[in-house]
Amino acid sequence: MTLVRSHFSPIISKLSRLISSTSTATDRTSTQLPIPMNVPTDGPSDRSKIIQFSSRLHDGRALAQDVWSIYNAANLPSDCINLGQGYMNFPPPSWVTDAANEALKQTLSNHYSHPKGRIRLRQAIKNFYEASFNRSLDVETEILVTSGANEGQYSVFTAFLEQGDEVIMFEPFFDQYLPSVTFNGGKPVYVPLHPNLEGDRPNSSEWKIDFDELRRSITPRAKMIILNTPHNPVGKVFSREELEKIAAIAEEFNLLVMADEVYDCLLYDGKEHVRFATLPGMWDRTVTVLSAGKAFAATGWRVGWLIGPEPIIKPTLAACTRIVFCTNSPLQEAVATGLEQARSRGFFETQVKEYQERRDVLLSAFDSVGLKYSLPEGTYFVLVDISRVNFPQDYPFPESVQGRGRDFKACWFIAMEIGVSSIPVSEFYCQEHCDIGESYARFSFCKDIGTLRQAAERLQVLTKYIR
Amino acid sequence: MTLVRSHFSPIISKLSRLISSTSTATDRTSTQLPIPMNVPTDGPSDRSKIIQFSSRLHDGRALAQDVWSIYNAANLPSDCINLGQGYMNFPPPSWVTDAANEALKQTLSNHYSHPKGRIRLRQAIKNFYEASFNRSLDVETEILVTSGANEGQYSVFTAFLEQGDEVIMFEPFFDQYLPSVTFNGGKPVYVPLHPNLEGDRPNSSEWKIDFDELRRSITPRAKMIILNTPHNPVGKVFSREELEKIAAIAEEFNLLVMADEVYDCLLYDGKEHVRFATLPGMWDRTVTVLSAGKAFAATGWRVGWLIGPEPIIKPTLAACTRIVFCTNSPLQEAVATGLEQARSRGFFETQVKEYQERRDVLLSAFDSVGLKYSLPEGTYFVLVDISRVNFPQDYPFPESVQGRGRDFKACWFIAMEIGVSSIPVSEFYCQEHCDIGESYARFSFCKDIGTLRQAAERLQVLTKYIR
Repeated sequence: MTLVRSHFSPIISKLSRLISSTSTATDRTSTQLPIPMNVPTDGPSDRSKIIQFSSRLHDGRALAQDVWSIYNAANLPSDCINLGQGYMNFPPPSWVTDAANEALKQTLSNHYSHPKGRIRLRQAIKNFYEASFNRSLDVETEILVTSGANEGQYSVFTAFLEQGDEVIMFEPFFDQYLPSVTFNGGKPVYVPLHPNLEGDRPNSSEWKIDFDELRRSITPRAKMIILNTPHNPVGKVFSREELEKIAAIAEEFNLLVMADEVYDCLLYDGKEHVRFATLPGMWDRTVTVLSAGKAFAATGWRVGWLIGPEPIIKPTLAACTRIVFCTNSPLQEAVATGLEQARSRGFFETQVKEYQERRDVLLSAFDSVGLKYSLPEGTYFVLVDISRVNFPQDYPFPESVQGRGRDFKACWFIAMEIGVSSIPVSEFYCQEHCDIGESYARFSFCKDIGTLRQAAERLQVLTKYIR
Repeated sequence: MTLVRSHFSPIISKLSRLISSTSTATDRTSTQLPIPMNVPTDGPSDRSKIIQFSSRLHDGRALAQDVWSIYNAANLPSDCINLGQGYMNFPPPSWVTDAANEALKQTLSNHYSHPKGRIRLRQAIKNFYEASFNRSLDVETEILVTSGANEGQYSVFTAFLEQGDEVIMFEPFFDQYLPSVTFNGGKPVYVPLHPNLEGDRPNSSEWKIDFDELRRSITPRAKMIILNTPHNPVGKVFSREELEKIAAIAEEFNLLVMADEVYDCLLYDGKEHVRFATLPGMWDRTVTVLSAGKAFAATGWRVGWLIGPEPIIKPTLAACTRIVFCTNSPLQEAVATGLEQARSRGFFETQVKEYQERRDVLLSAFDSVGLKYSLPEGTYFVLVDISRVNFPQDYPFPESVQGRGRDFKACWFIAMEIGVSSIPVSEFYCQEHCDIGESYARFSFCKDIGTLRQAAERLQVLTKYIR
C-alpha cells in the first residue's frame, strides 16, 4: 500500500497550490461567495451600481465555503474513493427506472403535476405507510409530495416560521437545516448529542441528549424542534424512551416537530424504527419527512414527501406551491411503482441486508486499523474517531481547511495520503460546540461492496499514522 | 351544437351544489385554506394546542383560493376542453424523451447534480444562448440550472429581497410572482399595461406601459422590476423601444431586472424577441429566466435556468442550494440533448410554425363569433374580450366565483355551456386595477390542432350569448 501513498503524494503540493490560488476565480464550489461581495450599505439612499443581495444570506453560513465544496471530488485526486458525500455509486433498481421510462411515454406524466403530488403517488404513499403510522392517511390533506426531502423541509420552515422563532436542532445536524431556518427568519438553537466512546465497541445509541440541557434551551420563542432518526451523521436510532421524553417536551412547550425520517428503511441488526408521529398525542404536531432518493438509491430524482395532519400539510402546501409549484412528474410515477411493488418484491428487506454487509466491510477496516467508531444502527454513515490520526503539522494543507477544526485537516490528510475521502464532523456543530465534532470524520457506505473493499484495503495504511 | 349545451346543462346544478357544499371538506384545490385556520395570536405566551402558521402566508393571496383551483378540470364537466391551464396535451419530442431513457441507464445521472446544474447542461446552455446574448457565457458563474423557472424566480427573490423592498410588476402578471415576492419580505408595486382594443384587429402590442405612471410608482425602496416578454397572459412582445425606456429607468433607479423570457422560442409573424440583457448596460443588472418546460413541451420536468452576471447568479445559487439543493438529474441530461440537437434538427422553427397554426385555428373561432381579442405575437395565450358575453344573472354559479370579477362568472358560464375552459384575467391584477382584467378571459392554444378545432367548433355556440 505504499503505492497509494506514492501515488498521491506527488500531486499534493500542486493541487493545494491550485486550489488556494484559484478558489475565488474558478469557483468549483457550490455556495462559496467571496465575503463581502456587496455588503448592504446604510440604506436605499446609499445606492451603488451593484445590486445588493439580501442580508439573509449573511446568516446561517450561507456565504461560507461548505464542506461539500472543500472535499468535492474535483479538489481531490481523481482516483480518491469518495466516502464523503452520501450518494450511491449504483443505480436505482431497474424495475423502478423501467417505470420512469414508461411514464416518459405518456403525455400527461410529462406535464404539470398537482402541487400536492400526483394522485397515483399519493395513493401509493398512503398504502405503503398507513401501517407504520398506525392510522389511515388522507391523500388530499395528509400527504404532500415535495421536490426532494430538502425542499419539503424548506417549505415547512417557510410555512411556519415567524421572524425570530426558535428552532431546536440536535448536534451534529444535517447542515442544510441551518440556512433553511435562517432564510425563513428562524433562529437556530443548538442542543448537542453527547458521545460516549468508552468500551471496546461503542454504539451510536450512546450519543445522548442531556434532557436538562434541552429543557434549559427552550425559550418562549421556541416554535419547532427537528428530530432526525435514524440520525445523520451519527447513525443513531432514537429509542422509544428517548422519543417519549422529547414528545413530553414538545407537548409541554407546544412545539411543532419536524421528524426527519429519511433513513427509515435503513436500520441494522434488527433495530426497530419508532415513528415519532405514532407516539401518543404527537400526530397533531408532527410532520414526517421522507425521501425516494434514500429509499430507491435515486438521490438525483428529487422526489420526497411529507406526512402529517391537515393543519401542518395545508400551510406547507401553500408554501411549496409558490416555491416550486410542483415536483417533476415522470419520476413521481416511477416512485409510485417503487412503493406499489416494494413489498411484494421484498425490496427493502434485500436492500437493508446489502447495506448491512457494506457497513460491516467498512467497519472491519477501522477495527483492524484500531480506530474507534460509533457503531451505526441506521443510515449509511459511520462516525470514526480520528483524534488519534497523526498528521504532520507542516503538511501542505490548502487554505480552505486552515483555521478550521482539526478534523478538517485530518480528513484532508486521509483523502490525500490514503485515497479515501470523508467529511469533517465539526461542520455539523455551532461554533460553541464544534470541539465535540472535531474528533470525528463521517464515512459513508452507500457504495457497492467492491468499492468498499478497496477503500478498506487502502485504509490499512492508516495504521502507521496512528499515535 | 345544441348537443353541447344539452350535454352540459343537466349536470350544472349537481356540480355546483357539489362544489359549494364540499369546497372545504374535499379540498380539491391546491392552495385553498379555510381562513382563519389558526390565526396568529398575541404572542408566544398565548399558545394554543394548534401550531400557528407563519403570518407571511396571510400576504400575497397565499391563502386565497386561486383560479387554477376554481377552474380545475376536476370541478368542470369531464369532457370540457381545457384551454385554461397552460400545459400541452402532447408529449415532449421523442428524441428528447429517448435521451431521458438513456440518462436513467447511467448510475451518475440518477444521483445528485451539482447545485449549479449538471455540467453537460450548463455547457449546452452556454452554446445555445451565447449568440442571442451577444456575449460568451461562463458555465461556472453565469448559468444556474433551477427546478423549473418558477423555483429560479423564487431563488432570486430569496437572494435579493430585504424586508420591505419593493418589486415592480406589470399587470396582468403571472400570478406566482406575487406570493413569491411577499414570502421573501418583498412588497409588490403594480403598474398596469393599458389595453387598446380599438380597430378591427387589435394587437397585443397595443397593451402599453404609461411611463409616467411607471416612474411615479418608483419609491426609494424599489429594488427590482419584473419584465415578462413575450408576455403571459397578454401575448405581447415588448418592442426594443419600450425595453430601452425600461432600461433607462432601471439604470436611473438602480433596479435589478428579472427578465422572464420563458416564452422566448414562441414568437409569431416573424416578430423579433429582444433580450433585455443585451440592451446597453443591462447585462450587469439583469437575470434572464428560461424554461425547458416551455421549450420542449415538458412542463412537468421542472427544469429551468437563469442566465446573468456573477454578482446576481452567486447569491441566487446560495439561495437555490438551500431551497432545493439541486435539480433532478436525468431530465437535466435529456434537456441537454434537447439544446444540443435543436438547431441541427430545426426543432424550434418547426415548433413555432405548429404553434402559429394552432393560434390561428383558435383565433378564427373568435373572429367568426365576433369576439374581439388582442392578437398574440408570442406565448401560447390569447386574451379575449368577454365583456359582450351575456349570461343569465341567475345562472347557478358556485360559491367560488361569487363576489369575484365579472370575468370569473363569464369563464364559468363558457366552461359549463360551451365546454371550453379559460381563465379569468382579473386574477392577474391587484384589487385596485382588477376592473381592467374583468373584460378578459385567457385561452391557451398549447393543445394539438385537433383539440383546438374541436374547441373552435364548440365556441360557435357563443354567438347566441353575445349581446
